[in-house]
Amino acid sequence: MRWSRSVVMVACLIGGGRTFLNQPVGRRRMPRVMFATQQGRASAAVKQQQEMGKVAQSEKLEVVPPRGTRDFYPEEMRVRTWLFGEWRAAAARHGFEEYDSPILESEALYTRKAGEEVTQQLYNFEDKGGRRVSLRPEMTPSLARMVMARRNGLPMPLKWFSIPQCWRFEKPSRGRRREHYQWNMDIWGVEGVTAEAELLAAVVGFFEAVGLTSEDVGIKVNSREVLAEVLRSVAGVDADEEPARFAATCVLVDKLDKLPPSALYDDFAQASGMSSDDVDALVDALDSSTFDDLPVGSRARRDLTELFDLADAYKIADWLVFDAKIVRGLAYYTGIVFEGFDRSGKLRAICGGGRYDQLLATFGGEALPAVGFGFGDAVVMELLEMKGLVPQTVDAVDVLAFPFAADDPDLSADLGRAAATVAATLRRHNLNVDLVLQGKKPKAAFKQADRRRAALVVMVAPEEWQNGDLVVKDMALGTQATVPLDDLADYVIRARADPPKG
Amino acid sequence: MRWSRSVVMVACLIGGGRTFLNQPVGRRRMPRVMFATQQGRASAAVKQQQEMGKVAQSEKLEVVPPRGTRDFYPEEMRVRTWLFGEWRAAAARHGFEEYDSPILESEALYTRKAGEEVTQQLYNFEDKGGRRVSLRPEMTPSLARMVMARRNGLPMPLKWFSIPQCWRFEKPSRGRRREHYQWNMDIWGVEGVTAEAELLAAVVGFFEAVGLTSEDVGIKVNSREVLAEVLRSVAGVDADEEPARFAATCVLVDKLDKLPPSALYDDFAQASGMSSDDVDALVDALDSSTFDDLPVGSRARRDLTELFDLADAYKIADWLVFDAKIVRGLAYYTGIVFEGFDRSGKLRAICGGGRYDQLLATFGGEALPAVGFGFGDAVVMELLEMKGLVPQTVDAVDVLAFPFAADDPDLSADLGRAAATVAATLRRHNLNVDLVLQGKKPKAAFKQADRRRAALVVMVAPEEWQNGDLVVKDMALGTQATVPLDDLADYVIRARADPPKG
Repeated sequence: MRWSRSVVMVACLIGGGRTFLNQPVGRRRMPRVMFATQQGRASAAVKQQQEMGKVAQSEKLEVVPPRGTRDFYPEEMRVRTWLFGEWRAAAARHGFEEYDSPILESEALYTRKAGEEVTQQLYNFEDKGGRRVSLRPEMTPSLARMVMARRNGLPMPLKWFSIPQCWRFEKPSRGRRREHYQWNMDIWGVEGVTAEAELLAAVVGFFEAVGLTSEDVGIKVNSREVLAEVLRSVAGVDADEEPARFAATCVLVDKLDKLPPSALYDDFAQASGMSSDDVDALVDALDSSTFDDLPVGSRARRDLTELFDLADAYKIADWLVFDAKIVRGLAYYTGIVFEGFDRSGKLRAICGGGRYDQLLATFGGEALPAVGFGFGDAVVMELLEMKGLVPQTVDAVDVLAFPFAADDPDLSADLGRAAATVAATLRRHNLNVDLVLQGKKPKAAFKQADRRRAALVVMVAPEEWQNGDLVVKDMALGTQATVPLDDLADYVIRARADPPKG
Repeated sequence: MRWSRSVVMVACLIGGGRTFLNQPVGRRRMPRVMFATQQGRASAAVKQQQEMGKVAQSEKLEVVPPRGTRDFYPEEMRVRTWLFGEWRAAAARHGFEEYDSPILESEALYTRKAGEEVTQQLYNFEDKGGRRVSLRPEMTPSLARMVMARRNGLPMPLKWFSIPQCWRFEKPSRGRRREHYQWNMDIWGVEGVTAEAELLAAVVGFFEAVGLTSEDVGIKVNSREVLAEVLRSVAGVDADEEPARFAATCVLVDKLDKLPPSALYDDFAQASGMSSDDVDALVDALDSSTFDDLPVGSRARRDLTELFDLADAYKIADWLVFDAKIVRGLAYYTGIVFEGFDRSGKLRAICGGGRYDQLLATFGGEALPAVGFGFGDAVVMELLEMKGLVPQTVDAVDVLAFPFAADDPDLSADLGRAAATVAATLRRHNLNVDLVLQGKKPKAAFKQADRRRAALVVMVAPEEWQNGDLVVKDMALGTQATVPLDDLADYVIRARADPPKG
């Protein structure tokens, strides 16, 4: 075993030839070291590779994952598992059921012409059967497909959630990868804003559970009907008569968050037939628009009033802010839209959602009221790290079982088998047990016990084992006891149920 | 709302025109019904679609998922969550840590020339940046890449597991989809068969936990060195001298499980230079080979003897069977190989694994001992269903909160808000609460409570609520109590901690 060598070698087979590169990899910096030819046990395999040859003609065999993607080593996986667990717990508290769909979908599911980022950046391709497919950029179209497929058999309303990995193809930049995980929660079959309120309560429920407050995070709320009103008055665009033009305009308004109006004059002219004066008037109107400007009796005013009243009832009103500029960048939203944001203003949107009552109709089905949100893993993790709210996660084991036989190279004999029996016995009592599988000195075994946060170390020592006894060390107390194998499981269960204080 | 209509309509925009098809979809049969034009609320969306037009020129917008893939509706997702939970629990009992890697990898990671099914059926393609990539067909190469990238920083031995979705591109058939989930467990850095034994113990630990016995399932065990011995004597192939030829021969021997030798004569001739007589002699030798035929002092004999001794120590010997014909179909195995099988002989292999000490070397790195297995979700679920061992899974909620106002169309007012407060209060006490979001008659609300297996229904009734009280019905006991809002959380927590017997 030579895993302590501080060198990572990458074999690159370029153009049929064979060269070796060393390069720093992963997130930790590793020293650059010159290549040294591998000898000995690797030789047969090197031959095997030479014979098999031609591992791609023009690509390096990389140890880094594909561009814009991540590996999850155990320490990163634990954090992901923690985050997913908090999402799942918030979903369960709010009575949502989990579903999933294939990560690969027919490209047609995403073909919309409203200029959305999500459809412009599809990770799409032609499969070997000649079909146009795409890694899913978002979950809502898959959900709509699933609802449509079993429409007559599903008990409404649906309250469903999922944690899909979603993909896009764009140049990766800091914090913008080609894949992310996205908590999705949706309610189908409810026309009123009770559904929006329930979703907002779930989002806030998650924030509260991970320790974020309404001073850290807010949620901007609007209705697309506010924009429809403004558009009608400044540019004569009628959202009801020209839904596609309205959808494309919404996508452009969403971009005003990042770009100056002048940068979008041409796009507005093309998509909405609006002059640059119209665009400036639109921006002014949205900037100055307050809740009270909404026409009395309009659906937007009624929806928003009801929603803020419900927020009071849920005790989440502190988190909500009306903002007429929020429209979100997806074409299919039709009513209330919302967006979670970091109050310090440093980060991109944390989550976003809205009502999309017409999506099934655009798929050729019968319209069905629906509202939902997507909540990515990247921005919220940045925020939680900024606030020091990411917990120290550990995968602790109850016991490390250790054959005390550092000088015995033939571990599978004798004490090794005894340690296997010890581990098997404890595991059949549902205890989590790591087992030392090689000859190790006690110091190394206790280091392993520390790393795996073992509560107890059970040593199979030659003399004690002759009498059928084990030596049990409590890692927190530092105490040692001699316990017969027959009593061991009970002993460990008692020790775990009554852990030492302090 | 018209979700009770028993018709699913699929809009197909073919060649720019607009036709509608009805077709049975999903797993449940749905009646074929003639298309009826959608009117009313869908009209704007239909216009939107007409304007956006051209939803792919030659594809139907399908409500079924892509060929060979699955949707997971909540009832299927619960079973998947149960299975993954059992896998994770078995991994935890054996001290394994979870990791993950991207579902998309560089194609070069899988380019091996040994004729394996796994590389012949790659779900590969060229991405928009011109890179050859593939949906992962198996997890081991990704794991090897991750180990190689941080080789000097990882504490050995590693005991890691993962539950990746893996893909292949082939014609789907019954039970053979294009994707499956695969429990992977691997140990790196251990040369001896203590690692194999630990993995076999984990597999058996899972079987035992889900109620399977050694009468239902067995695990065939062999070493590729047994095949190497036989090949040397019948055909003069030297595995050490010609590892690539040996690997390709192993892949062919694996196919003898499904095909008669005569069907593979040509392949053997090409890959191994073996005559048909050589092949027949090989088959005879493997068929008749017993444990005692292994040369005394050979590594195969030592490894297998040790492994079966360790199996005794783990008390899993009943599950194991020596079988010289088992070689597994992956090129990179070098030592012990094993395969879980259904003793009734009806199903394909349940799981498979082995030692692959040379994989890092074939990637141009330094060899590192490793052993692992893959365990798909499909066959084991077939087996568990055959045996009646799939549990009835439910996502039960603690409480259904219900505004008792069937005749009040304006639910978000008054009682709706009160119900929101009730739900929010209970959820902040970590209780799982479904909330009725629309005007519903009591019968419908109680049906919802039954479906979600609510333990309690909390009714916000007009008269009681005037005094700040709720009516709580215990769904198991059928009893009712009137409880003030301030006491409600305590009341529910007590009722859940002390559920009624019988």
